[in-house]
Amino acid sequence: MATQQVLIAGAWREADATGTFQAANPTTTEPLEDVYPVSSWSDCDAALASAAEAARQMRALPGERIARFLETFADCIEGCSQDLVAMAHAETALPVSPRLADVELPRTTGQLRQAAAAARSEVWKRPIIDTASGIRSCFGPLGPVCVFGPNNFPFAFGSISGGDFAAAMAAGNPVIAKANTSHPGTTRLFAEEAQAAADATEMPAGCVQLLYRISHADGERLVADPRVGATGYTGSRTAGLKLKAAADAAGKPIYLELSSVNPVVMLPGAVAERGEKLAEEFTGSCLLGTGQFCTNPGLVILLAGKETERFIAQVAARFKEASIGTLLSASVADSLATAIGLLQQAGATLLAGGTSGGGRGFSFANTLLRVSGEQFLNSPEALQSEAFGNASLMVVADDDAQAGAVLDRLEGNLTGSIYSDTAGGDDELYDRLAPRLRPHVGRLINDKMPTGVAVSPAMNHGGPYPATGHPGFTAVGMPTAISRFAMLECYDNVRPHRLPAVLRDENATA
Amino acid sequence: MATQQVLIAGAWREADATGTFQAANPTTTEPLEDVYPVSSWSDCDAALASAAEAARQMRALPGERIARFLETFADCIEGCSQDLVAMAHAETALPVSPRLADVELPRTTGQLRQAAAAARSEVWKRPIIDTASGIRSCFGPLGPVCVFGPNNFPFAFGSISGGDFAAAMAAGNPVIAKANTSHPGTTRLFAEEAQAAADATEMPAGCVQLLYRISHADGERLVADPRVGATGYTGSRTAGLKLKAAADAAGKPIYLELSSVNPVVMLPGAVAERGEKLAEEFTGSCLLGTGQFCTNPGLVILLAGKETERFIAQVAARFKEASIGTLLSASVADSLATAIGLLQQAGATLLAGGTSGGGRGFSFANTLLRVSGEQFLNSPEALQSEAFGNASLMVVADDDAQAGAVLDRLEGNLTGSIYSDTAGGDDELYDRLAPRLRPHVGRLINDKMPTGVAVSPAMNHGGPYPATGHPGFTAVGMPTAISRFAMLECYDNVRPHRLPAVLRDENATA
Repeated sequence: MATQQVLIAGAWREADATGTFQAANPTTTEPLEDVYPVSSWSDCDAALASAAEAARQMRALPGERIARFLETFADCIEGCSQDLVAMAHAETALPVSPRLADVELPRTTGQLRQAAAAARSEVWKRPIIDTASGIRSCFGPLGPVCVFGPNNFPFAFGSISGGDFAAAMAAGNPVIAKANTSHPGTTRLFAEEAQAAADATEMPAGCVQLLYRISHADGERLVADPRVGATGYTGSRTAGLKLKAAADAAGKPIYLELSSVNPVVMLPGAVAERGEKLAEEFTGSCLLGTGQFCTNPGLVILLAGKETERFIAQVAARFKEASIGTLLSASVADSLATAIGLLQQAGATLLAGGTSGGGRGFSFANTLLRVSGEQFLNSPEALQSEAFGNASLMVVADDDAQAGAVLDRLEGNLTGSIYSDTAGGDDELYDRLAPRLRPHVGRLINDKMPTGVAVSPAMNHGGPYPATGHPGFTAVGMPTAISRFAMLECYDNVRPHRLPAVLRDENATA
Repeated sequence: MATQQVLIAGAWREADATGTFQAANPTTTEPLEDVYPVSSWSDCDAALASAAEAARQMRALPGERIARFLETFADCIEGCSQDLVAMAHAETALPVSPRLADVELPRTTGQLRQAAAAARSEVWKRPIIDTASGIRSCFGPLGPVCVFGPNNFPFAFGSISGGDFAAAMAAGNPVIAKANTSHPGTTRLFAEEAQAAADATEMPAGCVQLLYRISHADGERLVADPRVGATGYTGSRTAGLKLKAAADAAGKPIYLELSSVNPVVMLPGAVAERGEKLAEEFTGSCLLGTGQFCTNPGLVILLAGKETERFIAQVAARFKEASIGTLLSASVADSLATAIGLLQQAGATLLAGGTSGGGRGFSFANTLLRVSGEQFLNSPEALQSEAFGNASLMVVADDDAQAGAVLDRLEGNLTGSIYSDTAGGDDELYDRLAPRLRPHVGRLINDKMPTGVAVSPAMNHGGPYPATGHPGFTAVGMPTAISRFAMLECYDNVRPHRLPAVLRDENATA
C-alpha cells in the first residue's frame, strides 16, 4: 500500500520520509491498514517557508475572509461527518455515539464557527485608541503556528480541527499541524476538508499544512525556527517539556497543556449528606471515556471519619463493578501501568484494580488507590504523578490543618473542585480551604466534577505550571483563547490612512 | 561606615551578607560613601517566606486598599523629592532638571497613581460572566513578584518605584525588589517611603521588600522559587537570558526588557524634503541622556543617493560638534566600547567618535558608524549588537529590494520608525516596507523618533524577542501592563456568596 501524502504549500505530495508508521486499532490492538510517513527536516523546512509566505498574505486579509474559511471548513466537516466518525472510532476506540458523533463533532464545528465570529468581529484585537497622544494599539497575528494535538480528542483538540487550530487561524496565522500519531487518518481527513475549504475561499497556499510525524530533534528545531510565531501543544509532560525548552531558548511563545490531576476536595458535611450520590458521581466522572480526559479527577482529598470510609468503600465497589473501557493506545496503557506503579512505590495502597488488561484491546483495570495525608506530605511530588486513564488516588487527611497542608503542596492544575453540604455546615471550612486551593488551579469548581469543559467565553482551560506553561491563558473559550496567538501592535503617530481599520478614528471608543 | 540594612518582612535589618559594595559617582568616577551588603540566599529565603504570607493576605484585600497604599506612596515620594533627586543625580549623573526633577519624578508618581486607579476600579481583572453556563472568570494576583530594575531610569523603572513595581502591586502582589547596583541609595530611599506608606495604610508586612545585590546563582534560584509568582527584569541581555532560562525551566513567568536597536527607516522623499531637520532631530534623539534609553535609535536604514550622503555628513558633523555626555557607570562605558568594537569587526566604518573618554567622568565619544546593505545582510546578527549609549549605525541600502531584505532580517525590537515625505511621494514605498517592519517591532512610529515613551493605555513598550520575552505584553501603560502579573481565574458553579465581588450577578455585563 502506498504511503499517504503530506500537505505542504497547498498541495498533497510525497513526503521526504525517513520511515513510515501505522496507527493501531485499540480494540483489536492490530495495526490499521494505512501507512504514514515520518517526515525529514526538509518537509518541515518546506512547510515553514510556505507558512512564512502565507503569513505575509494573511496579514493583509480582513477578518471576514478568515471567517469565511472557518465557516466553510465547518460546513465541509459536517458534509463528511460519517467518514470522520468512522475513522476516529477505528483509530481511538472512542464510542461513535454519543461521544464522537453527537458530542465532540458538534463541539468542534461549533468552536470553528465561534472562532469565525471572533475573526469577523475582530473582538480579539482589543483595540485601544488614545487620540490625545496619537497612540493606538491592538493585537495582531503572530506568524505561523505549529499545533501538536493530543491523543484523547481527535476532533475538538485535533491538530487541524481543534481549539488551537481555530484560535491560531482566527488571529490570521497559518497553521503547521503535526498529527497525533495515534490518529493520523482522522487528521488527514480534516486536512483534506481544510484544504478544500481554503481553495473554495481563496486562502493563500500554505495556510493549512500537515505533517504526520517528525523526529523529536526536528520537533525541537521546528518550534524554535525563526519563521515560527508560536506553538500550541497538548500531550505528555515529558515530550512537552522538551519542546518548551527549545521554544523558550529561542524566545518563541509556546502554549502547553501538559498534565493535571484535578484535585477534588470533599468536605465532611457533603460526604455525610450525600455520600452515595457523590460516589456515583465521582465514579462516573473518573471512568468516563476510560478516564482519558485532561480534567479527569485523579486526586480526591477527604477528611478522616466514618462517613469518609463508607464513601471510599462505595467508590471501590463501583470501580470493581464497572466495565473496563478500552484505552487509546498501547502507550497509554503502558504509561498508566507505570504511573500506578509509581504511586504504589510512593506508598499508595490499592483499593481496586491495579492490573493490566480486563477490557477489550488496550486496557487496564479501573484502579483506586489510597494514601494518608501524612504520606502525601512526605512524597507530594511522586503522589501527584498523573495516572492518565481510569484511575484515581484518595488522600485521607487527619484533620483540617493537614488537609490545608496538602492543598499548599499541590502543583498547578487545570481544575480544583470543592464539594460542601447544602445546609452551609461546611461553609466555614470552605472559607479556610478555598483560598489555599485557588492559586493552584485555573478553574475552581463547586459541587461538580471537573470533566466537561464548556466552550464559554468565561472558561479557563488553563492553569499554573505544570498544568500549562503560562497561567494567564486559556486553551478553550472564544475569543479569549485567540489571544495566545497574537502580538501587541502599537501605532504611534502613524498617518490616518495607514492605520488598520480597527484603529481608525471612526472606531474610537473614547 | 556601617553597612546599610535590607528591608525584609516589614523591618529594616542587618543583611546576612557575603560581602559589600559601593556605587560610583559617574561624574567623578569615585566611589560614593554609602556601603551596601551583598545578600546571601538566607536573605532571599526570608524575603520569599514573608512575601508568600503577604500574598495570602493581599489576596483578601479589596482593590481600594491597594490603591490607598499606592497613592500614599506617591505622596511620600513627592514629600522627599529633593532628597531623591539629589541621590539619583549623585549615583547616575542624570541631570537634575529637567530630567530627574521635572520629567522622571512626575512620571513615576503619575504611574503609581494610574496603577492606584486601576487597582481601585479593578478594570485589569477583565471579568467575564456567563450566567447561562454558571461560568465566570477574571484575572487575579499571581503571587510574589521579583523586580530587577535597570540602571537608566532610577525612578520610572526603579525596582521599588517604577512600572513593574506599580503593575505588580496593582494586581495585589507583594514585590521583592533587587536594587540596580548602580543606584542602591536611590532605591533605598524609595523603599523607606514605600515601607512608610505600607505602615500608614496597614498593608501586610512583606508587601514591599528590598535586597541590594545577590549572586547570579541566587538570582537564578530566586526567580525559579516555588513561592514566586513572576519576575520583571529590565537590563542587559546577557544577565536577563540567564534569569529567563532559570525561570522558564521552573515554569515561572518572567517579563524581560532586554535590548533593542530601534530601527529608523528614512525614505528618500523625506530625506530630500527635510534632510537637515531630520539630521537635527535624529542627533537630538540619539544623544539625549547620552543615548542611554531602551528606545535609543541605534540603527538607521537609508537608501543610497546624493541626499542620503548629505544627510549622513550632516549627522556626522553634529555628532562631532555635540558635547559628550556622562555615562551611567564604568560598565556602561566598557560595554559601549566593546559593542563599537564588535560593529567595526563586522565591517562598520567609523564616521565620528569611536574612542573612550572625552566627557566628564565615564564617557565615550559620540559615535556614528556606517555599513552598506550588503554588509548588513552578510552579518545581520553582529550588526544588530546593541551599543547602549551615544552611538548609532547607518545602513545604506542599494535599492528598495535590499532595504526590504534588511527589514526581513531584523531581530525583535521595541520600536521601529519610518519617515516619509509630506507630499505622499514615499507612500508607495511605505506600503511595501511597513509590512516587513511591523512583525519585528512592538511600536510602529511615523515621522518621529522612538525616544519618549508616553504613559498611555495604548502604549506598547514591548515587542518580539529578544526585545522582550513575550510579544503579547507591555511594560508601560496602565492598566495593560498589569496583566503581566495576573493569572486567569475561573469560577465554575461556585455558590454566589463565595464569588469575588467583581464576578457577582450584580456586576454582570451581559
